[in-house]
Amino acid sequence: MGLQRSPFEAASTGPQTSSTAGGWQGESPAEEARLPPIQRLRRAESRRWPLPPGAGRSCPQKSAETLSSQYGLHLLLAGLLLMFAWAVHAVGVAKSAVLAYLLSLMALQLLWMVWYLGRRCAHKRLIQDKDTQAGARWLKCGITLFAIITLIMDSFKIGYFIGFSSCLSITEGIFPVAHAVHTVLQVYFLWCHAKDVIQSFKTLERFGVIHSVFTNLLLWTNGILAESKHQLNEHKERLITLGFGNISIELDDHTPLCNCTSATLCSIFSQGIYYLYPFNTEYHILASTMLYVVWKNIGRKVEYLQPHKRPFKFQGTAIGSTLGLVVFITTIAVVVVYLIQIGRSKLKSELALIMFYLYAITVLALMCAAGLVAILIYRLEDNSLDISKNPARKLDADLLVGTASGSWLLSWGSILAIIYAQSHPAYTWFSLPYSVLVIIEKYIQNLFIIESIHREHGKNNYDIKTLRILTVSSGSNLSPTASYKEIYNGTNGKLSPTFYGNSYPSEDSSSCALRENINQSRIPVPPSSPDFSFTWRKFSVNSKRSILKNVAVFLFLCNLSLWIPQAFGCRPEYDNGLEEMVFGFEPWIIVVNLAMPFSIFYRMHSAASLFEVSCKM
Amino acid sequence: MGLQRSPFEAASTGPQTSSTAGGWQGESPAEEARLPPIQRLRRAESRRWPLPPGAGRSCPQKSAETLSSQYGLHLLLAGLLLMFAWAVHAVGVAKSAVLAYLLSLMALQLLWMVWYLGRRCAHKRLIQDKDTQAGARWLKCGITLFAIITLIMDSFKIGYFIGFSSCLSITEGIFPVAHAVHTVLQVYFLWCHAKDVIQSFKTLERFGVIHSVFTNLLLWTNGILAESKHQLNEHKERLITLGFGNISIELDDHTPLCNCTSATLCSIFSQGIYYLYPFNTEYHILASTMLYVVWKNIGRKVEYLQPHKRPFKFQGTAIGSTLGLVVFITTIAVVVVYLIQIGRSKLKSELALIMFYLYAITVLALMCAAGLVAILIYRLEDNSLDISKNPARKLDADLLVGTASGSWLLSWGSILAIIYAQSHPAYTWFSLPYSVLVIIEKYIQNLFIIESIHREHGKNNYDIKTLRILTVSSGSNLSPTASYKEIYNGTNGKLSPTFYGNSYPSEDSSSCALRENINQSRIPVPPSSPDFSFTWRKFSVNSKRSILKNVAVFLFLCNLSLWIPQAFGCRPEYDNGLEEMVFGFEPWIIVVNLAMPFSIFYRMHSAASLFEVSCKM
Repeated sequence: MGLQRSPFEAASTGPQTSSTAGGWQGESPAEEARLPPIQRLRRAESRRWPLPPGAGRSCPQKSAETLSSQYGLHLLLAGLLLMFAWAVHAVGVAKSAVLAYLLSLMALQLLWMVWYLGRRCAHKRLIQDKDTQAGARWLKCGITLFAIITLIMDSFKIGYFIGFSSCLSITEGIFPVAHAVHTVLQVYFLWCHAKDVIQSFKTLERFGVIHSVFTNLLLWTNGILAESKHQLNEHKERLITLGFGNISIELDDHTPLCNCTSATLCSIFSQGIYYLYPFNTEYHILASTMLYVVWKNIGRKVEYLQPHKRPFKFQGTAIGSTLGLVVFITTIAVVVVYLIQIGRSKLKSELALIMFYLYAITVLALMCAAGLVAILIYRLEDNSLDISKNPARKLDADLLVGTASGSWLLSWGSILAIIYAQSHPAYTWFSLPYSVLVIIEKYIQNLFIIESIHREHGKNNYDIKTLRILTVSSGSNLSPTASYKEIYNGTNGKLSPTFYGNSYPSEDSSSCALRENINQSRIPVPPSSPDFSFTWRKFSVNSKRSILKNVAVFLFLCNLSLWIPQAFGCRPEYDNGLEEMVFGFEPWIIVVNLAMPFSIFYRMHSAASLFEVSCKM
Repeated sequence: MGLQRSPFEAASTGPQTSSTAGGWQGESPAEEARLPPIQRLRRAESRRWPLPPGAGRSCPQKSAETLSSQYGLHLLLAGLLLMFAWAVHAVGVAKSAVLAYLLSLMALQLLWMVWYLGRRCAHKRLIQDKDTQAGARWLKCGITLFAIITLIMDSFKIGYFIGFSSCLSITEGIFPVAHAVHTVLQVYFLWCHAKDVIQSFKTLERFGVIHSVFTNLLLWTNGILAESKHQLNEHKERLITLGFGNISIELDDHTPLCNCTSATLCSIFSQGIYYLYPFNTEYHILASTMLYVVWKNIGRKVEYLQPHKRPFKFQGTAIGSTLGLVVFITTIAVVVVYLIQIGRSKLKSELALIMFYLYAITVLALMCAAGLVAILIYRLEDNSLDISKNPARKLDADLLVGTASGSWLLSWGSILAIIYAQSHPAYTWFSLPYSVLVIIEKYIQNLFIIESIHREHGKNNYDIKTLRILTVSSGSNLSPTASYKEIYNGTNGKLSPTFYGNSYPSEDSSSCALRENINQSRIPVPPSSPDFSFTWRKFSVNSKRSILKNVAVFLFLCNLSLWIPQAFGCRPEYDNGLEEMVFGFEPWIIVVNLAMPFSIFYRMHSAASLFEVSCKM
């Protein structure tokens, strides 16, 4: 039967039948390109015939997937609990225990990466499957930028350790050195292999990649924890300045117990480290997501898609860019003023809060309006969605909704606090529209981004080579018979099964239902001048596209701007005070510290997604 | 082109082209059954030709999915924060606020369900798509059982309210009444419509179903919260008895402030409620998962699969059942002794703990061994996996790994506590093998279940109608030319594109690559007597199947058994004391209260999955 092998056949043909069912289905596109055209055509067609379920995937591979994901979860859980134990000052759990755990994870990842890179170098001639939709160039550039800042942070940490070397554990000196080596090698790995679709040593590679994913996730958590502790200490210091004595205030591992050999340098290092932490955490979470896509791609059968390099052009995005840049500059100004004013005195704190709320409300309202316009335009266009399998895109969409939940939780906290608070100082009322707008803005923006990344933007574009073939319908005499047939040459490489160029199926292939489809497609066009209609549509499509592009660029810059206040400690959720009064100091601090990292990551992630959307348009 | 319509065509043919591309692709199987055979054949074939990406799914539907999932998340987040506020005694947030929120959610869900049921009744004649893999009969029976116990709990609550009516808020009286109505209607809804694949009013239905999913999830959380508070109070009472004065002990909303009109009845009610809570929480989480599958199925194009009713038979599972029942009875005895002994005195507590650990270690070791045997058998068989789209199965697999993380977190906590504790009383050492075995057992069990639910159990079964067609290979003279061709008549309805019965593709269809596959499939069978090989294989397969079935039944009963101690408050993680010493009382209580509900749900969920696996075998 071919499509469904009997156990007898499976036994006689050995293991290769289960790993690559269909024989040549596992060949790389480059190898296939060397074949004569007729054979290529046949293969393209037969690929459309679905294999029986499971033929492309053997049991051990499914097991390896479950095994490795469970292994990764254990790494994460053990690490999280260790950090939790350190954070709650568990008996006997020192910072060095956490660092030692992270060091061993990084060492293991380094070993695996060296082995992988070595093997790739040794088998350079072997043609490798690539997932063209994974590891975009701008993503790699972004991660490299963050990695460079991470390296600066590591050097600061080394300097800090040298200064306080007499009273710091040795692991605090080894950690930044190992982390720097890890960062350099990992960035190289991601540059060269983020698109890899691994087809050999699959079980081992699954473990290696998932180990890397969770190592980065734990390094992210470690960064978040250090940053949260720092922010909390700053907040407590402000409360002491403002004279709140009723809250249990104890500062948490602020400075080592000995003197620094060079006090000025140490101060610069310790201050600098905390300004660089946000970039470090972004680096790790981005690396983690990229590696996760590599993991999802292991053993996958990818369709060969022509990679389209669509560099971002600022052309036609003047309004969006200008407005966005205005928001960006305003943000920096607002953050600087906020950080200087907050905690100085009660009045100055309140004024800083009001300023921040007014600024945020304006920006969020503009973003809501822009998002709504874009969605309305989408509703007017009747475009189709690309729902083919794409791990990178699925992860993007899931992360958008998942991480938005972090800031939604904070917003609901603020709303509940306003509802249940017994007294409402004037400035706290600004928190209500702010929280509501945060919810609505992310709701709309997620809708826009998720629809954008699923749209087939090339399909509606009139710049592509459109071939209008006038056919004369023989069966219908109700209407003019012109129908437009578009053959997309290389826009996304997906050609219909039997139409390669314009080769039609032979009359004999009556068992294929394709002819039925052809007849169905001869749908009459209303009898108007096609040229006028075409020009008008082209104009309409172009103007819509221009608006969408401006919206995407504007939202991209706004998200980048809104990342700054949260990442650099401008957090009205702390300073407002209303939530702390209603929920209690500790419960609310726990909520903020759990939700804030996701909220920060959301902004960077949505900015990245919006950049991709602008490039696609 | 047919497969790729130009915007002009889309405009001229109206909206129906975007919603059901391919015209008749959306017809129900029953309607199709009335068609002449040749037409059915064509349809079955053309279904294999993939539609262009997205043709089956329009943009508004993708938007509706995102919109509704985000709406559901907001319901959840607001509800969680409200419960959190109540749990931490936030200023102004009373229990009635939480109940009022839940009441309004339930009322909205009731309205939607009534509307849905009404519309279904009015359009009874319309043939509805069904997902035969969703809402299995045993699942419905299970949920009905839990719902009945929930109704008993509601009546207890009403009785309790009547007793204390003078000092309880009116919402505490309305809640159980509304909850009972909600339960009855929801169980009816799930019985009749759990398999529905909704194809009309999709956007509205999406909101309705996701609202129901999250309402049930919040009712589950509410149950969990009430139960956790009760458990914590019991634990604190035990600590007081044992003379631990150094831990901040304050009992949490234990009894109302007035006297009950009938003290005995009220005592029975309040005690009874807490013994019934575990069933109530299981009911809500099960309902939530069933409704989630309905949500995932909305607008889906399902292939018509013949529903196979495979009732569970005890035949051939004597060893597994007997061993499992022994475990079950032992568990009940151990739990009763544990609950009586714990907290009486230091010695009695320690003895109870040691007894529990020894019992659990034995059971878990047996389960590990059984799971390993099953996985080894799977590795010996070279079976294929069914990786077709199946929301119910995907949810099952995700939930297994996700909820196992809850108990893994607790196990890692115990392991870290043993590593970092400064003193180790003798009985605490039992906690180490127990925790390690909990990790290993769930690791192995998940592997077994996930592989089992993805296996095509029917495929290797020799009871199915197997047709051996001896064909004479014309091209090969190296070996005997017998090849086994199996045509599966109705085992899962999936027939290869052109082989309907034994109709072969015509010689003319040279453009289809199928003939190539046929030639490839003529793989020689080793020259042995086919009859002997067949008999031997049949014996081997049957004995393997018998072992697998015994393992599945044994694990099913063990999981059901292990659900009991956790659900009814036999929690060594509380009573051990080591973790509380290392992490601190409050941090560890937070970890246990967060992780325990998932750990409890894991046992019931894996039991359900294992029951399904036993039925399939």
